[in-house]
Amino acid sequence: MIKVIELKRTVTDSNDRDAASLRRELTERGIFLLNLMSAPGSGKTTLLSRTITDLTGKVRIGVMEADIASDVDALSINALGAESIQVHTDGMCHMDAGMTRDGLAELNPKADIVFLENIGNLICPAEFDTGAHRNVMILSLPEGDDKPLKYPYMFQKCDALLITKTDAAPYFDFDLAVAEERVRAINPTIRIFPLSAKTGDGMKDWEDWLIQEWEKQKNA
Amino acid sequence: MIKVIELKRTVTDSNDRDAASLRRELTERGIFLLNLMSAPGSGKTTLLSRTITDLTGKVRIGVMEADIASDVDALSINALGAESIQVHTDGMCHMDAGMTRDGLAELNPKADIVFLENIGNLICPAEFDTGAHRNVMILSLPEGDDKPLKYPYMFQKCDALLITKTDAAPYFDFDLAVAEERVRAINPTIRIFPLSAKTGDGMKDWEDWLIQEWEKQKNA
Repeated sequence: MIKVIELKRTVTDSNDRDAASLRRELTERGIFLLNLMSAPGSGKTTLLSRTITDLTGKVRIGVMEADIASDVDALSINALGAESIQVHTDGMCHMDAGMTRDGLAELNPKADIVFLENIGNLICPAEFDTGAHRNVMILSLPEGDDKPLKYPYMFQKCDALLITKTDAAPYFDFDLAVAEERVRAINPTIRIFPLSAKTGDGMKDWEDWLIQEWEKQKNA
Repeated sequence: MIKVIELKRTVTDSNDRDAASLRRELTERGIFLLNLMSAPGSGKTTLLSRTITDLTGKVRIGVMEADIASDVDALSINALGAESIQVHTDGMCHMDAGMTRDGLAELNPKADIVFLENIGNLICPAEFDTGAHRNVMILSLPEGDDKPLKYPYMFQKCDALLITKTDAAPYFDFDLAVAEERVRAINPTIRIFPLSAKTGDGMKDWEDWLIQEWEKQKNA
């Protein structure tokens, strides 16, 4: 028997209205915003880089990189010729709708699809609606198949889950079936895409879903 | 040229006094508290399990597992026969000194060394003094050698850095020399221990440091 102590929650969110109004504005401007979340080091930037390259000519993609410091991610994305901007949060652990609006005003994208690469964090970003049309998360294989048990809010909130770095499977005890079962217990309708942005395996299914959701939004 | 937008910081910490007083009390009780921080999935529990096993008979180790949900980590630690307790933060992204005090009161450890396994997060835990005598962080090799650039506060705050999962080196582009250089630019005095809790490589250097710091504290 493990004794479990419940500590009180102090985080509150008051930005739901801001988020809803930003989402409406973006819809009117024909911009489809995706909020991409994950732990640090799960490969958000690598995934985005590959996605941008694969979809060149099919759809215009813009990227807003949020980070507490550094601009290494925006530099990588910029090198691909995609519209990108780096947003610093000065130590803040998530993006909210107001911050997303400020960043988008500077980016002023001509893109069809804009990714917000949120702060690397499986907790705080899940609590704040950014105004995005879809929430997508990455779980990389080295992080372990127990993460849905430990960070349920994040898995609950997302429309799609990308299980990345599948090429490194021989090195890690990650049971894909167990992971999927744990995720579906929390979120039965989530779409799950195992893939490797390094080898390209599984990328097409994720990219097809992305295009399909964008077209759904456009024709809504 | 990347345009960088600086957003304002809203996080404040008011628990420094609580932390200092908890640290004094623990010192008087002969308990050496270590705050162990990392991203989700970097292997905190695996590292602790191996450390507890290796040091059996030399020192009594207790563990307070903090998590936003689940008790999978405390179950693993408990199976090793170590004193352990699970603390839930109800979605909160870090532990502060008050929460640490509440958890320790329940654990009521007879241990010489107590680890606080903090919430998996490279941002928020760095901002709150828990009352621990030392701060230790893990960076696992799959997370990438750019993390010191992206999460500088965490690297700045720690006394020791464990670079883990070195056994998976063939699968990842992680340059140990580059990582160390980036860390030392932020924190010149940090101790760095590359290791694999799976194979045992490098564990002894970390454990020797742990024992040495504990003895330093005891004889202070």
